[in-house]
Amino acid sequence: MSAEACGARFARLPEPPYYAVIFSNQRTEGDQGYGAMADRMVELAAQQPGFLGVESTRDAEGFGITVSYWASEEAIRAWRAHAEHQVAIEQGPRAWYAHFETRVAKVERAHGMSR
Amino acid sequence: MSAEACGARFARLPEPPYYAVIFSNQRTEGDQGYGAMADRMVELAAQQPGFLGVESTRDAEGFGITVSYWASEEAIRAWRAHAEHQVAIEQGPRAWYAHFETRVAKVERAHGMSR
Repeated sequence: MSAEACGARFARLPEPPYYAVIFSNQRTEGDQGYGAMADRMVELAAQQPGFLGVESTRDAEGFGITVSYWASEEAIRAWRAHAEHQVAIEQGPRAWYAHFETRVAKVERAHGMSR
Repeated sequence: MSAEACGARFARLPEPPYYAVIFSNQRTEGDQGYGAMADRMVELAAQQPGFLGVESTRDAEGFGITVSYWASEEAIRAWRAHAEHQVAIEQGPRAWYAHFETRVAKVERAHGMSR
């Protein structure tokens, strides 16, 4: 994998402090519109004030972790209340997730390293 | 997937506040001892004072996110300083990761839901 392709998976974030929403989830089987919804939510989140970045991955068993990063708690609250996001939140447990956990956290320090 | 198998992927955590170490990483190709090291680190972490749980996933492109949860910043510092963990930390960028980012965060609220 090229350094550029590799780098695209990582959020480019400012110096802490900032906020993280850690969303761990187990997909149900079958797409059922999940892919289109997920793409749309990332596109929409990126347009919100205070959005800093997102990192996301999912294994072959359908267990995924998505961490989105935000400038403030207000930005997280506003995104949560966004009408189109609300529809996805309400649909989530019925349509796409066997189980999920959301944790909202304040990032206090960070460091990274490349090979 | 049974509810039990699904539940095993999620950390069972106390009420916040507690701490999260969000470790996003891009694996290099080939195992090179990574699997054995990763299993050992999870086993060892789970024995440390203040360890609360861990959630981890990685996609087919080798992009992984592991979030470990801890009772305090002291517990995170002690785990970071653990001799066997130190060896893995120093080996990491050379042997296993093209790039990684670590963010330490204080979890302030959490909620979950099952289908």
